[in-house]
Amino acid sequence: MSQPFDTGNSAWLIMAAAMVLLMAPGLAFFYGGMVKTGQVIAMLKMCFGCVVLVGIIWFTVGYSLAFGHDVGGHGLIGGLDHVFMSGVGLDSRTGSIPTVTFAVFHMSFAIVTVALISGSVAGRATMKGWLVFVCAWTLLVYVPMAHWVFDPQGWVAKQLGAVDFSGGTVVELASGAAGLALAAVAGRRADFERQTIRPHNLPLVVIGLALLWFGWFGFNTGSSLGVPGAAAMGFVNTQFAAGAAMAGWAVTSWWRTRQVGLLDISMGAVTGMVAMTPAAGDVTPLWASVIGFLAGLTCAFAISWKYRFGVDDTLDVVGIHGWGGLFGMVMAGLAATGVMTGKKGLFYGGGWDLLGKQLVAVLVIGLFSFAMTALIGKVVDRTVGLRQAHAAEEHEQVYQNDWDVQFKEIADALRGSGIDQGGSQPDPSALLDQVRRLLAADQEQ
Amino acid sequence: MSQPFDTGNSAWLIMAAAMVLLMAPGLAFFYGGMVKTGQVIAMLKMCFGCVVLVGIIWFTVGYSLAFGHDVGGHGLIGGLDHVFMSGVGLDSRTGSIPTVTFAVFHMSFAIVTVALISGSVAGRATMKGWLVFVCAWTLLVYVPMAHWVFDPQGWVAKQLGAVDFSGGTVVELASGAAGLALAAVAGRRADFERQTIRPHNLPLVVIGLALLWFGWFGFNTGSSLGVPGAAAMGFVNTQFAAGAAMAGWAVTSWWRTRQVGLLDISMGAVTGMVAMTPAAGDVTPLWASVIGFLAGLTCAFAISWKYRFGVDDTLDVVGIHGWGGLFGMVMAGLAATGVMTGKKGLFYGGGWDLLGKQLVAVLVIGLFSFAMTALIGKVVDRTVGLRQAHAAEEHEQVYQNDWDVQFKEIADALRGSGIDQGGSQPDPSALLDQVRRLLAADQEQ
Amino acid sequence: MSQPFDTGNSAWLIMAAAMVLLMAPGLAFFYGGMVKTGQVIAMLKMCFGCVVLVGIIWFTVGYSLAFGHDVGGHGLIGGLDHVFMSGVGLDSRTGSIPTVTFAVFHMSFAIVTVALISGSVAGRATMKGWLVFVCAWTLLVYVPMAHWVFDPQGWVAKQLGAVDFSGGTVVELASGAAGLALAAVAGRRADFERQTIRPHNLPLVVIGLALLWFGWFGFNTGSSLGVPGAAAMGFVNTQFAAGAAMAGWAVTSWWRTRQVGLLDISMGAVTGMVAMTPAAGDVTPLWASVIGFLAGLTCAFAISWKYRFGVDDTLDVVGIHGWGGLFGMVMAGLAATGVMTGKKGLFYGGGWDLLGKQLVAVLVIGLFSFAMTALIGKVVDRTVGLRQAHAAEEHEQVYQNDWDVQFKEIADALRGSGIDQGGSQPDPSALLDQVRRLLAADQEQ
Repeated sequence: MSQPFDTGNSAWLIMAAAMVLLMAPGLAFFYGGMVKTGQVIAMLKMCFGCVVLVGIIWFTVGYSLAFGHDVGGHGLIGGLDHVFMSGVGLDSRTGSIPTVTFAVFHMSFAIVTVALISGSVAGRATMKGWLVFVCAWTLLVYVPMAHWVFDPQGWVAKQLGAVDFSGGTVVELASGAAGLALAAVAGRRADFERQTIRPHNLPLVVIGLALLWFGWFGFNTGSSLGVPGAAAMGFVNTQFAAGAAMAGWAVTSWWRTRQVGLLDISMGAVTGMVAMTPAAGDVTPLWASVIGFLAGLTCAFAISWKYRFGVDDTLDVVGIHGWGGLFGMVMAGLAATGVMTGKKGLFYGGGWDLLGKQLVAVLVIGLFSFAMTALIGKVVDRTVGLRQAHAAEEHEQVYQNDWDVQFKEIADALRGSGIDQGGSQPDPSALLDQVRRLLAADQEQ
Repeated sequence: MSQPFDTGNSAWLIMAAAMVLLMAPGLAFFYGGMVKTGQVIAMLKMCFGCVVLVGIIWFTVGYSLAFGHDVGGHGLIGGLDHVFMSGVGLDSRTGSIPTVTFAVFHMSFAIVTVALISGSVAGRATMKGWLVFVCAWTLLVYVPMAHWVFDPQGWVAKQLGAVDFSGGTVVELASGAAGLALAAVAGRRADFERQTIRPHNLPLVVIGLALLWFGWFGFNTGSSLGVPGAAAMGFVNTQFAAGAAMAGWAVTSWWRTRQVGLLDISMGAVTGMVAMTPAAGDVTPLWASVIGFLAGLTCAFAISWKYRFGVDDTLDVVGIHGWGGLFGMVMAGLAATGVMTGKKGLFYGGGWDLLGKQLVAVLVIGLFSFAMTALIGKVVDRTVGLRQAHAAEEHEQVYQNDWDVQFKEIADALRGSGIDQGGSQPDPSALLDQVRRLLAADQEQ
Repeated sequence: MSQPFDTGNSAWLIMAAAMVLLMAPGLAFFYGGMVKTGQVIAMLKMCFGCVVLVGIIWFTVGYSLAFGHDVGGHGLIGGLDHVFMSGVGLDSRTGSIPTVTFAVFHMSFAIVTVALISGSVAGRATMKGWLVFVCAWTLLVYVPMAHWVFDPQGWVAKQLGAVDFSGGTVVELASGAAGLALAAVAGRRADFERQTIRPHNLPLVVIGLALLWFGWFGFNTGSSLGVPGAAAMGFVNTQFAAGAAMAGWAVTSWWRTRQVGLLDISMGAVTGMVAMTPAAGDVTPLWASVIGFLAGLTCAFAISWKYRFGVDDTLDVVGIHGWGGLFGMVMAGLAATGVMTGKKGLFYGGGWDLLGKQLVAVLVIGLFSFAMTALIGKVVDRTVGLRQAHAAEEHEQVYQNDWDVQFKEIADALRGSGIDQGGSQPDPSALLDQVRRLLAADQEQ
């Protein structure tokens, strides 16, 4: 074991990787709290399925294809020199930290990216179809994109020269575009029109947000591979952007409904952190705040597109991650100071050059992810099946003695007892009315 | 980017800041679990409102007023040289770490301090009134105090020379004093006399405690700005004090009721960490344990003051943070070893000198916070309104399909069905009796 | 304060210790979610009781007996040179980090180990009996074992020379063996035969898992006392093993029942991390994956032993921690590369030597823990009482206005209303049937 390592930088990257890995359960709770009671377990399983399968793919060939020696020199795909992590150890690929830590840091990015997509088909994808999709998407979509953007030999990083510090394209925009395609393939829920997100458990959503937020500090800073410079800026900007985006979303929300809900500001916080991914370490705190605020303001609008276009992107992956990532990429082209990367945006004397590059990266990665996802989704749907039978949507896999579920079942029993023969969708206020009527009848006797 | 930085110290301060930021949701869950079911969402919103508003104030002028160049040399307030974080970047204000990280570390302190106060008016403050209060209090109370205590040019730190490592005065005592004033201004809940804290969701309280505890390691150590010395001691002492305080609270609780509840030991843990803030890095582990134990023992008594004086400090901000902070300050005057700060307490040969300084700091900050809060609270109450209408207390903003809330509504419906015409306060055991009677009647027919 | 310290290594050990301390509430939620609704508070109290009592014992004499100067040179027990942490401060016992941090890092190990045992008697131990057991076991069983394994002068580490990086024996195997003995002493629950684990709150289980997983990165890497080498490998291998073990458990689960539940993969993840404790830093990532996969595969079988032998190890401490720890120790004897410790396993040219040593360590520690636990358990049971009266099992201490509990009580009331006079065990589906019948009867009138 040679020792060219910097212990501080190495410690921080381990920490950052552990924090990003905490985002997987964080996302599971964030999504899990938003869906209906009967779907929370399925949601958690969809996320943890990513942890397992993406991990296996990354370990066997994914890391090698993403960060192995570039094949052909076009920056399109890495070689097979590191399959099964061979040759990945305590050497120092990236300067002052062990390569093996770097490999797992990036594994955690892959896991989170794929898990993000699950929100677009929440409550109606089959578990089997989802898991097959996860494997195919990781290998055919994420891994090449990671090579393009994160590997110094990748075409986005090298030939194109766009700025994408922590995955505004490969993580955020790509998952948003994939969510759009997959939601379209899976089709709408029966009750899509009437359903905005009504979380069955908001505290669980906020527990998820807390872990996501904490993890995002690792996400937006670990990529710097050096603590006191880019990591410090990335950390600070992530926080400012998150706060500003909460404010931005709240403004839109207040303007439209005269209310600001807890779910609104939670989504706002996520949006701000999304928009900060491309240039977290490379803008000033003031610009971070502006970017965050505008991201929150606009994303609060962006999520209503789905009703206009009739695509059931259930938990708003497109609006938040797709739009947020795109917006962040564009803003990086405007506001990057070049302190970290040497690439200046329009406002810092870099001219239109960087902005153009950012748009190319956005366009290519957005279209690539969308097209590939549509293809993979269709194939999965035709073969193993992606969409649940309608009846199953109501009764997701749940553990039998979860009292929440019991309560739901009792509600169903009340409903089934002959009082109400109405629609099959459990409606809380209708249920309440039934109980009231039942008891009134009881009193009258 | 110059490199006089120490990567280990820099990594630790980022980490510590991220941990303290996790205390904001931690506190939200800690408080949110304690209140009634219908109030949990409002509690979470009150805490996250602090994240947004305090962050904006800190970013625009707060940091500058707290840590800018002292105006007039009296240590009363900082200048406007750093508004909008201008000039705050990757330079090294405090030795070996980037200033911008330091700025956000202290922003997290401000957020947590203000959020703490919310517990004193849980379940009865209007959201609008609270948010206006948050802005005013941050700017007019917290920011000056932070300059006094945390800035090396502040009068508590420099002219007076009291020891307050991590905010026993400015964070703990100040929030306690503010809680006292604000609870008095807001007035009591209708059912104050009958209500001890009966958490609607104890596991959520403990989730909050877990995050608070984890975050406190950052809180009590980050201030050292150097890892292996004061941070190591601060970490260790925080843990010992928390454990000892749980034991201390348990002793009091057992002595008084022959029972030790989970809520008791949870509050005990917080108390111990509160009492350790002033001198976390500057006492021996043995003294940390003693301080923690005594803090737990006495705080368990301190929280009953509110029934004696009739001030509805709903979630015991005064008893835990006010008394805990005061007690910790006094103990620092007795037991500080001077290893870190050079200031020795009475037991380590420093004479009565330090103790006197501690008492002055306590007195001035306690009175300042109390008086200013009372003033701000009154003004807010007269203008935008601080106190909810009574009817609203029962039905806080909740998401419609939260089953817990549904259950509550069903209970209300049961109650409204004519069986019980009693008090409007839902009483679980009465509800149970009603169900029992209802079913008994059903059987008899 | 001398400064031979490495700030990066010191920062990491503080962080690792904080992460391991987060495992205590993590375990509380993991276990607490698995038990019945009425037992969750008791479960949390059992875990937090360990935090308090183990902390006190460690502080007063435990650390000294475990890591003090070896008495007699046989590696059996440390001396009393460090009682009340005297002489434990900012010196550097172990190289580049402060000794006091090391002391608390190991305190967190002790806390977690003892808390693990609680799962074996979940829902039927008296709180008093448990707390007495905790004190006795920490002092008489854990502390000596910690000296044997973790102190460089201990006989397992020095005379025997087995590899146990992070406590495969002293933490995992020992808690498993203790769980076996204690479950036998406490006796079975009345309804043991019919009861597999049916978590009352799976999201809470997963919240616990998330904290455990995050904490385990500290657990399996902090022992290295140096960041870039063993810590990096330990981190990476922990992640790979956890993922692979989820897959392994899923395979077994699918093979046996054609289903893979969320609880299955959650237990799988824990199992993988358990099996990685002995040699986290000293195997290749490929071997980490293999060890994790096989651990998951076999542990999924191991947990059914309890029905065969009729020992009510309620939450599978024996199957997961006992078997997982044993398996990990054996695999270390086969696959250790010797890069960190210099000790090579069979597959890396070390011959059968290391494997033999591993088996001796397993045998001695397993038997020691089992025998001592049986003895302590018996004494506790005969004196203060370990087993709750049967009636109390149904109505654990709960806070009165927890709606979950209210719901349970209403269910009990429904049951008590004369419709069903069956077994006293609340069975959700039976309850549902009753409600259905009750309502049907209501309709007919």
